[in-house]
Amino acid sequence: MPLTRRAFAQRLAATAALSNFPSPLLPAEGSRKIGYCMVGLGRISLGHFMPGCRLSQMSQVTALVSGHRDKAEKYAAQYNIPASNIYNYENYDQIAQNPAIDAVYIALPNSMHAEYTIRAAKAGKHVFCEKPMATSVKDSQAMIDACRTVNKKLMIAYRCQYEPTNLRAIELIRSGKLGKIQAIESANGFHETLGEWRLNGKLAGGGPLMDVGVYSLNASRFLTGEEPVEFQAYSSVIDKDGRFNDVEENLSWIMRFPSGVLASCNTTYGANMPGFVRVHGSNGMLHLEPAFGYEGIRLQAQIKGEPAMDETNPAKDPAQFTREGDYFSDCILSGKEPKTNGEEGLRDMQYIERIYRACGRSLL
Amino acid sequence: MPLTRRAFAQRLAATAALSNFPSPLLPAEGSRKIGYCMVGLGRISLGHFMPGCRLSQMSQVTALVSGHRDKAEKYAAQYNIPASNIYNYENYDQIAQNPAIDAVYIALPNSMHAEYTIRAAKAGKHVFCEKPMATSVKDSQAMIDACRTVNKKLMIAYRCQYEPTNLRAIELIRSGKLGKIQAIESANGFHETLGEWRLNGKLAGGGPLMDVGVYSLNASRFLTGEEPVEFQAYSSVIDKDGRFNDVEENLSWIMRFPSGVLASCNTTYGANMPGFVRVHGSNGMLHLEPAFGYEGIRLQAQIKGEPAMDETNPAKDPAQFTREGDYFSDCILSGKEPKTNGEEGLRDMQYIERIYRACGRSLL
Repeated sequence: MPLTRRAFAQRLAATAALSNFPSPLLPAEGSRKIGYCMVGLGRISLGHFMPGCRLSQMSQVTALVSGHRDKAEKYAAQYNIPASNIYNYENYDQIAQNPAIDAVYIALPNSMHAEYTIRAAKAGKHVFCEKPMATSVKDSQAMIDACRTVNKKLMIAYRCQYEPTNLRAIELIRSGKLGKIQAIESANGFHETLGEWRLNGKLAGGGPLMDVGVYSLNASRFLTGEEPVEFQAYSSVIDKDGRFNDVEENLSWIMRFPSGVLASCNTTYGANMPGFVRVHGSNGMLHLEPAFGYEGIRLQAQIKGEPAMDETNPAKDPAQFTREGDYFSDCILSGKEPKTNGEEGLRDMQYIERIYRACGRSLL
Repeated sequence: MPLTRRAFAQRLAATAALSNFPSPLLPAEGSRKIGYCMVGLGRISLGHFMPGCRLSQMSQVTALVSGHRDKAEKYAAQYNIPASNIYNYENYDQIAQNPAIDAVYIALPNSMHAEYTIRAAKAGKHVFCEKPMATSVKDSQAMIDACRTVNKKLMIAYRCQYEPTNLRAIELIRSGKLGKIQAIESANGFHETLGEWRLNGKLAGGGPLMDVGVYSLNASRFLTGEEPVEFQAYSSVIDKDGRFNDVEENLSWIMRFPSGVLASCNTTYGANMPGFVRVHGSNGMLHLEPAFGYEGIRLQAQIKGEPAMDETNPAKDPAQFTREGDYFSDCILSGKEPKTNGEEGLRDMQYIERIYRACGRSLL
């Protein structure tokens, strides 16, 4: 039974007070929650997106897709999901007949994003897909086309574009307080372990650039509001321990934006490289660190003639997942096009392809 | 009259206590101070190197070269320098006849470094030259040859290579505690004002890469202990206000080292870009910031299984100038080759030339 508008408002206000950031979304009076089918029960679904839905007034997990029935039943019980709403990768297309499913959440290895997005579209469902969108430009375009054909929404989970402290950074830049933006540094990486799918070229499509470097790429774009026009890059493998037979270990790239802004970025699977972005303007600089994590996003800024700024988003994980999920639920309910739609994901895929080409590699 | 060894030791101990870092140098018993002739009375001479000598037991300012006699006389009085030890750019070669001058300190616009180094060598003096060494590889080699021919020392003022907190960072990396080094980010830049010689291509030879980017270049080399083998770069001009008719405003470059370490660096004259270096290893990371300034150099490190490290060099400006000056004085007294000799400067000049070429520019 839907909550009244007033009850919604009270609960949202309570959440907002907790997080110190107002939640921008309020579902239309009388609307039901958007039902999500989890496609893939890995760390991000189980540890983040599903707990995020638990805190939401707009999104709920109503179905699961997994190759492991036992595992699915265990989590179905925790989320009050009936056994009839558990699917596997073979009977996945039957979600078409399930009205409890409005949308799917694709949290599979990268190379499977396209297939499961297209099958979801054919089943008449909206698609919320983790980044990177796919493992090729062609697949990305096919995903966009499949969703458009059936008039369903496609959103790529660029979580940072919905995170309040990242939004503050954008606002600070757009306000002109930093002056003319000149340069950006960014990095993001972690130490990946042998055996993980991210090291398998067929499943991942690429190395750390695909998985974590894309945060620096996407942030450089949303912070400047520009699209990069040129790329140069190097990749390297230092650890000859069998982890990097398919994918690169390290990748450094530079990009030039039309205004002349230059960005230099690093990514790696060989070191725990804290995610940061630093933006230099003629009138000041800002530094986001951690910039891309699930909680504790911190913004520091030094602007000429103003006191130093130092703000941390106090919201705890999975608040960011609640927020991006609610945004997509609102898009579905209101018919609004998501700001991080398929085209946004496609652009990054095109840039990733060009970065790989610049260092003599290619998407796998 | 020279101090006794004991008096020296006491005064050095007092200085060391002040700075929390032991001074590594102790002049040989009975040795006199090395006499320096300042070539160029700009900010770095007057504000840093000369005050640095005042605090030194090994170095003293004994002569001045300036195009402005009044200015020279004013500072000569402050430093008890006799009027006979004031030179101008015409009679500069007469320093040959002045036994109070052991060495010259070259703090002129970049394009003048070669000429005044070579004339000093011909006058039989040792040369301590500010970075960048020169404005061409050819000039750099000529400077090395000129000093070698007369058997005089040539040291390039790579201050950071003598600064204790930078040295701690090197030590931390060499100890293996950071594991295998994978990647480096670095930046350094400042907002330069119209009319300054640094914006004049003929005097500067290049833009921020020459003047401040060279810190990131040099630090990437001394921190890894490797020589970069490949470079890619972009430059840009964003501010069309007449400052950047000759030199670049922004420059981003990436370098590959033989081990596979990748470094990405930014420099600018369009923003106050705090100097930093961040080094990522498989077992931890270190961050130097400020990394290159005259005081307050701070080292933070996160190493797996160890408490976080956060150390700041408490020594105040001009302690770094005292230290690098004393190092060179010790080289002169003991016959030791400076670690940042002409060849060290030449290597950076070669890399700078390659970075400019990589972005379609050249040394000016």
